[in-house]
Amino acid sequence: MFTSTKNMPISVNRRCMIIRCEAGNGNHMAPRSSLSTVHRLIQEKGAIFIPGCYDALSAKLMERAGHDTAFVSGCAVSATLLGEPDLGLLTAPEMARKVGQICTAAPSLTVLADADSGGGNVLNVQRTIKQLIASGAKGCFIEDKEWPKRPSAGNLRNDTVIAMEEFAGKVAAAREAIGDSDFFLVARTDARGTSAKYGFEDAITRANLYTDAGANASFIQGPRTEEEMRQICKRTNGFRVGNMIEGGVTPLHSYEELKAMGFQIIIHPMSSIFAVTKALADVYGTLAKKGTTREDLSGLATFDMFSDFVSKEEKFVTMERLTSRDKDDKLTVRVRAPGKPVS
Amino acid sequence: MFTSTKNMPISVNRRCMIIRCEAGNGNHMAPRSSLSTVHRLIQEKGAIFIPGCYDALSAKLMERAGHDTAFVSGCAVSATLLGEPDLGLLTAPEMARKVGQICTAAPSLTVLADADSGGGNVLNVQRTIKQLIASGAKGCFIEDKEWPKRPSAGNLRNDTVIAMEEFAGKVAAAREAIGDSDFFLVARTDARGTSAKYGFEDAITRANLYTDAGANASFIQGPRTEEEMRQICKRTNGFRVGNMIEGGVTPLHSYEELKAMGFQIIIHPMSSIFAVTKALADVYGTLAKKGTTREDLSGLATFDMFSDFVSKEEKFVTMERLTSRDKDDKLTVRVRAPGKPVS
Amino acid sequence: MFTSTKNMPISVNRRCMIIRCEAGNGNHMAPRSSLSTVHRLIQEKGAIFIPGCYDALSAKLMERAGHDTAFVSGCAVSATLLGEPDLGLLTAPEMARKVGQICTAAPSLTVLADADSGGGNVLNVQRTIKQLIASGAKGCFIEDKEWPKRPSAGNLRNDTVIAMEEFAGKVAAAREAIGDSDFFLVARTDARGTSAKYGFEDAITRANLYTDAGANASFIQGPRTEEEMRQICKRTNGFRVGNMIEGGVTPLHSYEELKAMGFQIIIHPMSSIFAVTKALADVYGTLAKKGTTREDLSGLATFDMFSDFVSKEEKFVTMERLTSRDKDDKLTVRVRAPGKPVS
Amino acid sequence: MFTSTKNMPISVNRRCMIIRCEAGNGNHMAPRSSLSTVHRLIQEKGAIFIPGCYDALSAKLMERAGHDTAFVSGCAVSATLLGEPDLGLLTAPEMARKVGQICTAAPSLTVLADADSGGGNVLNVQRTIKQLIASGAKGCFIEDKEWPKRPSAGNLRNDTVIAMEEFAGKVAAAREAIGDSDFFLVARTDARGTSAKYGFEDAITRANLYTDAGANASFIQGPRTEEEMRQICKRTNGFRVGNMIEGGVTPLHSYEELKAMGFQIIIHPMSSIFAVTKALADVYGTLAKKGTTREDLSGLATFDMFSDFVSKEEKFVTMERLTSRDKDDKLTVRVRAPGKPVS
Repeated sequence: MFTSTKNMPISVNRRCMIIRCEAGNGNHMAPRSSLSTVHRLIQEKGAIFIPGCYDALSAKLMERAGHDTAFVSGCAVSATLLGEPDLGLLTAPEMARKVGQICTAAPSLTVLADADSGGGNVLNVQRTIKQLIASGAKGCFIEDKEWPKRPSAGNLRNDTVIAMEEFAGKVAAAREAIGDSDFFLVARTDARGTSAKYGFEDAITRANLYTDAGANASFIQGPRTEEEMRQICKRTNGFRVGNMIEGGVTPLHSYEELKAMGFQIIIHPMSSIFAVTKALADVYGTLAKKGTTREDLSGLATFDMFSDFVSKEEKFVTMERLTSRDKDDKLTVRVRAPGKPVS
Repeated sequence: MFTSTKNMPISVNRRCMIIRCEAGNGNHMAPRSSLSTVHRLIQEKGAIFIPGCYDALSAKLMERAGHDTAFVSGCAVSATLLGEPDLGLLTAPEMARKVGQICTAAPSLTVLADADSGGGNVLNVQRTIKQLIASGAKGCFIEDKEWPKRPSAGNLRNDTVIAMEEFAGKVAAAREAIGDSDFFLVARTDARGTSAKYGFEDAITRANLYTDAGANASFIQGPRTEEEMRQICKRTNGFRVGNMIEGGVTPLHSYEELKAMGFQIIIHPMSSIFAVTKALADVYGTLAKKGTTREDLSGLATFDMFSDFVSKEEKFVTMERLTSRDKDDKLTVRVRAPGKPVS
Repeated sequence: MFTSTKNMPISVNRRCMIIRCEAGNGNHMAPRSSLSTVHRLIQEKGAIFIPGCYDALSAKLMERAGHDTAFVSGCAVSATLLGEPDLGLLTAPEMARKVGQICTAAPSLTVLADADSGGGNVLNVQRTIKQLIASGAKGCFIEDKEWPKRPSAGNLRNDTVIAMEEFAGKVAAAREAIGDSDFFLVARTDARGTSAKYGFEDAITRANLYTDAGANASFIQGPRTEEEMRQICKRTNGFRVGNMIEGGVTPLHSYEELKAMGFQIIIHPMSSIFAVTKALADVYGTLAKKGTTREDLSGLATFDMFSDFVSKEEKFVTMERLTSRDKDDKLTVRVRAPGKPVS
Repeated sequence: MFTSTKNMPISVNRRCMIIRCEAGNGNHMAPRSSLSTVHRLIQEKGAIFIPGCYDALSAKLMERAGHDTAFVSGCAVSATLLGEPDLGLLTAPEMARKVGQICTAAPSLTVLADADSGGGNVLNVQRTIKQLIASGAKGCFIEDKEWPKRPSAGNLRNDTVIAMEEFAGKVAAAREAIGDSDFFLVARTDARGTSAKYGFEDAITRANLYTDAGANASFIQGPRTEEEMRQICKRTNGFRVGNMIEGGVTPLHSYEELKAMGFQIIIHPMSSIFAVTKALADVYGTLAKKGTTREDLSGLATFDMFSDFVSKEEKFVTMERLTSRDKDDKLTVRVRAPGKPVS
C-alpha cells in the first residue's frame, strides 16, 4: 500500500481520498529552513533518551541528573495538576501552561509535550501547536485516539481510533501551524493498543501515512513482543518512537538495545510519576501511622539537598551582586559611563 | 506587657500605638456566627495533624492515607510550580490557583494554605485572603517576615521581620476580609527564626499581639529546644502551631508528644516534598546511569496502583451509568416524568 | 410525543431509549433542599433581565448601572480573552477562570456562565459544572451543538446538533454534578438555529426532553418570528430563555414584552461586546488618523469616572483605616483585649 | 552631576555609591549582538506611536486600525482583569499571562508591557523580565514608585519613589535578565509625578542614571507644562517617552508635535480603556432604563463587523482547506510522496 504512485489520488476507503504530491508542493509541507533542535540531537547521538517530567521540580531534577531532553506526559500532568486519570479531562491550554513553567524552570532541557488528540478539530490542533511553541516546547506528540470517548463506542474502557485520513488532516494542520518554527512533530497511533487482532498492520499503515502527511516521526503505541518492535523498525519510514512503560504491554529494553533495534526517540514517560506516587504513599502512610517521620528519615532528601536542587545559593549570589552594601551600608551599583546609550 | 488595661492606648514603640478594645468593638473583630471547620476539628480531636501537600496528586494521596487536613506549603509550591527556592518569587494568585486545584481534586480535605507575607500591604493581604477563600481553603498562615528582602537588610541570607504593629495591621486586614467566612487565620512570627539572641521573647510578645489583632492561632517559627517549645505553650494565648521540619532547628516530636505539650495545630510541611525529591533524584539517576528501570522496579508504584490513586475506575463507572448502551447499541437515559419541573 | 406514560421506555429512535420515572427516582433528579438564587430571583420578579459581560470591568459597570444578574458569553470571552471567533476554541477551564474573576470583581451579581457544549463527554461536562460552581457562578447554559465541528459535517459554516438522547445524557450528568449546590441549569438547543425547515418542531421536542432530564430551564436558540416565540412559550414546559442579539434572526423585543409573552430568563449576551467593539474601532481609528484624541474627548470616560468605576476611593479608605498614622507618624492598630481568643 | 569621570565611585548620597565603567565592563551592560525590534522601529520612523491595549480583542482592533506597536497598560489590565484600581494589586505573572494572550492574538504587533515596579526586589524583577520575554513582549516599562505603598508613607494617596540608587540596581538586574534577548527596557521615574516642588530636577537626574544603569530609554512621568516637556528632551540622554493621558497633568500634544519636540516613544495608554468605559456605561445604562437596545443600535458594532474583527471567515477557510469533503462526502488530504521524510 502507498508504494510509489505520485500525485495520484489513492482511495484508502470509500469515504476518503489521499492526494500524494512531491515534498514542497503545498505550503504546509515545506521543509524547515534549518535543522530543528530535535533533529540535531538525533543526528548527534543516533537516538535521544527522554524521561518524563510533569512539573518544574521534576524538570530541574532531570537537568541535575544529566538528562538533556524531557517528555511532558499528559497522564502525569493530568494526575498532578488535576488529580484526574488520563481520560481526556486535561485541556490543551492547561498542558501548554505547564510546559511553559517547565521550560522556564529548566531552560537547558529540550522539551517535548504530549498534545494528546490535539484538543478537537483542525482549528483546535492549530491553536494547541501554536500555544506549545509559544510555551517553549521544541516538539510534541499528537495521537489518533478518539476524543472525547463517545457513547457509541461500546466498551468505554477500550480506546478507539478515528479514521486515518481524518487524522492525517490533523497532522497536516499541525504542520501548517508549525511553519518555520523549531518544532518536531511526532504522530502517535493507538491502532495497535486498541486491537489485539487487526491493530498491528493497521498501525504500520497509519504510521507511514502520518509521516507522509507531515509528521517528523511516528509512534506506534503498544507493540506486544520484541518481534513487533523489530517489524516497526523495519516497516515504518522516518524516525520512530520506542515507549517504555513499567508494567505496560511492551517488553522493557534499555536505551542501547532500543537504539540498536532502530528507535531514535526513546521515552520513559511514567518512571518518574510512578516513583513519586510510591514515595508519597509511603511518607503519608508513615505520618498516618506514626505521627512523625523521625524514624524514617532515610526516605527523605535533606533540606540542603532540596535547597540545592532549587538553586537557592545561586539566587543569593545574584541578589548580593546586584544589591550589595558594604560595612557602612553603602549600596554599590555599577552603571556605564554617562551618556553612552545602551544599544 | 499587654496585661490587662482595656481600651487604653499602649505605646509599643515610639512610632506605633495599639488601641485595645473589647471583642466585638470594631466590625473586623466580630466573632463568626458559627464555629469554623478548623475550630470544629480541633475541638473534636484536641489537636489536628497536618502533613504538607503541593499539588493535586499529593493531595489525593493524603486522602487515601487517611489524613483529613492538609497544609499547602509555599516552599513546596514554589519548588514544584516554579522550580524556585522559597525567596518570595511565588505570588499570591499563583498560590490561590494551586489551592483551588487541590481543593477540587481532594474535596474531603480541610485545606490550610501558606499565604507567606500576604503579598504586600493591607490591600494585597485582603485580596490574598479573598482569593484563598474563593479557592476553597479553610484557613491560612500569614507571616511577619519582611518581603521582599531589601538591600538595606544587611546579610540577605537572614530574614528580617517588620514592626509588630505593622503586622498587627495586616492581621486586622485579614480578619476584616474573612468576615463571616469559614476560614481560620494563623499568624506566624519569624522573630525567633531570625535572631538567636533576642528573638524568643520578642516572638512571644508578637504571637500574643497577633492573636489579639484577630488571628485564630499563633505560630512561633523556629524554637530551638524542648524548653522553648514548652515556654511557647505556657506563655502564648489561644491555639498554637507546632512545626516539624526534618533537618530544621526544632527537635522532632510525634503528634502525641506535641499534643501533650499543648500544641493544637501540628504541621509537617516538608515531609512529602523531601520524599518526592529523593524519589525523583533516584529514578532520574537510575535512568541516566542504566538507560532503563527494569532492574529497579521496586522503587516504583505499579500502573494499577497509580490508576487507583487517581480514581480511574470511578470515572468509568460514571461514564457507563450516564451513557450506557446495551448489546443492540441502544443508549439509555433516565429522565423524569414529563412536565415535572426540576425545583 | 413524550406525553404521559410514566416509567415506560420510549423509543425515540432506533439507537436510543428514554426511561421515564417519577421525580426523585434516581439521585441525580432529586430536588434541591432549598430554592436556588436564580429560582428566587425569577419568583420575585417574574422574569430576570440579564445583559452579557465578559471581564471584570464590564461586570463592575453592570453593577453600577443597577443590574443584578449577568451572563458571561462564550462568544465575548473567546473574542476578548483569545481574540478568536466563537468556533469552539475557548476551553471550559478558561471560561471558569474568567467567571471566577468576574464573580470576585462584582460580588453582588448573580452570574450565569456560557458552558457551550460542556467540553466533551459526560466526564468533561461534570468537570465543567464543578469548576463553574467553584468559580462562583450560580448557573450555566449548556448546548446540544456538535463540538468540535467535524469533517463529516458537510458545510462547516452550519452548526449541527448531536442526538437528543445523547445530549439528555449530558444534562443528566450536569444535574448529578450539581448535587445540592446553588446552581441553575439551562439546556439550550441549536436545532432551530441549524435548520430552517425541520428545526422548530425538533427544537420543541428537545427542549422538553432536556428539562425532563434535569435542566431547570430550556433555551430554543434562533426562533425567527414572533409566532415562533409564542409557540415556544406555549409548548415548552418549565422556564424559558428569550435571547436578544442585535442583528440576529430573532426580532428584538423589550424586557416587558418578552416577560408578557412568557419568557422568564431574558438575555442580551452581545450588546456590551458590540458597544465595546465600536468604541475601540473608533478610538484606534482616531489615533491612527490624527495621532491624538484631543479633539475627540467626548467619546472617552474621564479619568475620574474611570477611577470611580474601579472603586479607587474605597481602597484608599480601607488602607487608611487599617494603617493610619497621625501627624507624629504613629501607626494606630485596633486589637482586642488581651487573652480573648477570636472564635 | 554624573558628568565625565569614568570608573570612579560617585557618592550620590551617604548610603549609596555608583561605580561608573565603560560600556561592556560587566556582562549585564554588554550591547545586544543585533538591533532590537523597537530600536529598528524607532530608526525607521523617528518616533513610534503606541496606543494602549489590555486584552486580545483590543489588540486585534489596534492591528486592524493600522497600528504596529502596542502598550499593555497595568492600569487597564488591573481594571479589566481584576476590576481593581491601579494600586499594586495586579501581580507580574498575571500581567505576563495577559501579554502572552495579546501577543498570540495579534502577532503582527510589537508589544511593550507595563511591568510596574517589577514585582519586588531584584530577583522578582528578573523573574518578571524573563516572563515577559517568554510571553512575547518586545519590551517593558519599569518604574521607581515605592511598592507596596507603606504605612510610613504619610498621605497614602500620594505615591513615593524609592532611592534612585536602589532603582538603578533594579535596572541593572533587568538588563542582566534580558541578556541577548530582543527586548527594549524603559525606566520610568515618578519623581516628578509625586512632588510638585522638587520633583522635576530629581527626575532629570534619575532618568539619566537609569539609562546609564542599563535602560534603553527613560520616561519622566508627569511633566506639567510644555516647558518641562522641552527640558526633558534637552536634558535627558537617550530615547524618551512622551505620555499622553486624557485628563492627566501633561498637556495633550499630537504625535507630530511630540516627535518634533524630541520624544521617540509616544504612548496613549488610557485612550482605549476610557473609550470602552464610556461605551459600557452607556449600553448598560440603556439596557437598565429601556430593557432593550432596539432604539439605540447606532452605538453598537454589527454582528458582521464583530465577526470580521475576530477573523471568523479566515478560520472557516482553514477548516475547509484541511478537512474538505466533496459532494460524495470524500475527505481529501494532501500528503507528500511516500518515504520522503519531513526535514
